[in-house]
Amino acid sequence: MSDKGAVVIDLKFERREVDSALTDAFKGRQVLHASDKSADLSGARYALLWKPDSDLFRRAPNLEVLFSGGAGVDSILTLPDLPEIPIVRFVDHTLTTRMSEWIVLQCLSHLRQVPAYLRQQRVRQWREQPQPQASDVTVGVMGLGVLGQDAAQKLKIMGFDVIGWSRSSKAIEGIETYDADGLDAFLGRTDILVGLLPLTPDTRGLFNASLFGKLRKKGALGGPVFINAGRGGSQVEPDLVAALNSDVLSGASLDVFEKEPLEVQSPLWGMEHVLITPHAASASDVKALFRNAEEQMDRHEAGEPLLHVVDRKSGY
Amino acid sequence: MSDKGAVVIDLKFERREVDSALTDAFKGRQVLHASDKSADLSGARYALLWKPDSDLFRRAPNLEVLFSGGAGVDSILTLPDLPEIPIVRFVDHTLTTRMSEWIVLQCLSHLRQVPAYLRQQRVRQWREQPQPQASDVTVGVMGLGVLGQDAAQKLKIMGFDVIGWSRSSKAIEGIETYDADGLDAFLGRTDILVGLLPLTPDTRGLFNASLFGKLRKKGALGGPVFINAGRGGSQVEPDLVAALNSDVLSGASLDVFEKEPLEVQSPLWGMEHVLITPHAASASDVKALFRNAEEQMDRHEAGEPLLHVVDRKSGY
Repeated sequence: MSDKGAVVIDLKFERREVDSALTDAFKGRQVLHASDKSADLSGARYALLWKPDSDLFRRAPNLEVLFSGGAGVDSILTLPDLPEIPIVRFVDHTLTTRMSEWIVLQCLSHLRQVPAYLRQQRVRQWREQPQPQASDVTVGVMGLGVLGQDAAQKLKIMGFDVIGWSRSSKAIEGIETYDADGLDAFLGRTDILVGLLPLTPDTRGLFNASLFGKLRKKGALGGPVFINAGRGGSQVEPDLVAALNSDVLSGASLDVFEKEPLEVQSPLWGMEHVLITPHAASASDVKALFRNAEEQMDRHEAGEPLLHVVDRKSGY
Repeated sequence: MSDKGAVVIDLKFERREVDSALTDAFKGRQVLHASDKSADLSGARYALLWKPDSDLFRRAPNLEVLFSGGAGVDSILTLPDLPEIPIVRFVDHTLTTRMSEWIVLQCLSHLRQVPAYLRQQRVRQWREQPQPQASDVTVGVMGLGVLGQDAAQKLKIMGFDVIGWSRSSKAIEGIETYDADGLDAFLGRTDILVGLLPLTPDTRGLFNASLFGKLRKKGALGGPVFINAGRGGSQVEPDLVAALNSDVLSGASLDVFEKEPLEVQSPLWGMEHVLITPHAASASDVKALFRNAEEQMDRHEAGEPLLHVVDRKSGY
């Protein structure tokens, strides 16, 4: 009936949310569900994936494009039988603004001594804490993709001194940036380290004792703070716990963990100077995901290039 | 020796901080301390005040200008024997950026469910909370002076829908504003109310049960939030406690109180959805205060008009 390509959905999101978003999406396209084990997926040209079934690529051998359900694609790149076709990352205004909300919130929380004031509130103590201003504190953002650049600009508007790092050098207006060779210099200036890195062989275990020890020691906050909203696999949690216990780090905000959900026995839960959220810094809005994918399918069928295609060599 | 006017200092700040700031300030001017009871203050032309001695104006009868040590001047306007000379408010970039740090922090804290995540962290619970995005939430800023305008712009950049209210109508680019006549309409649209009002006869007790009941009930946060960084005298605390206990308000962030320090027995301390700081949202930087006053003294002596002079009729 339609010459628009069929779509297979394999998103391990909340089913209700997916169904609700589908009512308005993919007009003129056949929509198949991988969860329907009797469905014939052989005609599907596109797949939307988040933690897909292991037999998906066998059932749908004629896919032309894969759409990731989240910003990170590390879990897709390691799928068995992954076909050699373009993988499109989910880049969306919503995803970006949500992440910046969380990062600015966490940077301001450490700047304005939220853990100390919470402790005081519990014991009904009225005492002003020393409070450096944002311009006295350097936030170093690691990862300067769409998310990192938006966060950096907003942190700057809030008054922070902001510097950036990415593997290959990037020019961002008004923000001094470092590349792979400049990592130590970047860390030596950083009071609050914000991790927004994808998980790749290069970044696995990057946030370890050695790296924490290179952050600026005598900054305005009294010690460096580590904030991770990238991927848990980039952090070495025993090193992180040791650094927080020995004042190598004065605080942390963590949204991602080596193993999620974070285990009940992790000492991170009980640390007063650590703020924990359950991988909720930036949530994929399913409607936006579908709108985005739909636009790109139309582009693809009109012979235009896809946007935000993953570079498999660099891993993001 | 110098034809520059003498300055008397009567600032009930931390003495060490004042002394440290004085080493670089008021070059060419005689600096007198009201705390030195043997000092002859009759030649002083300027006074820098914060909670001054009751005999200051008798000891220094030849003052030409008073400089307030803080942004609020309500405590100065009610001093006995206050002379009929210009009172200059302390308006400083630092004071403004600090206040915006605190306000953005508090709005993001309620948007991103910080009280709920803190509770979950205490019991080591991994669960994502419903999280509307900033654009779904309307922040209503009451008080559109220098502080209110800066906060409004930054909240807008963070993605919030922002509206403003001031007694007399004010035009601010990109932000819809209401004046005295539009108060109920303004409140009916507001999910997070930010109070940045001076304490005047008009604002005393303004934040009461009646006002809380007019805020938007069914917004994206599930109920309205009250944030006060203006003056404690503007809020009726028994009404505030009742509103928080009855879900008329879903949360609050309070930096100011009817009586400061907040009394140990206040139920506000123990409320999980209330975030308390000890009148520390924006701290006067003493160096900035002195630099500011010095510039204005030079202006005054050069025959130029003073800036940021208090209008005694409106009370700020």
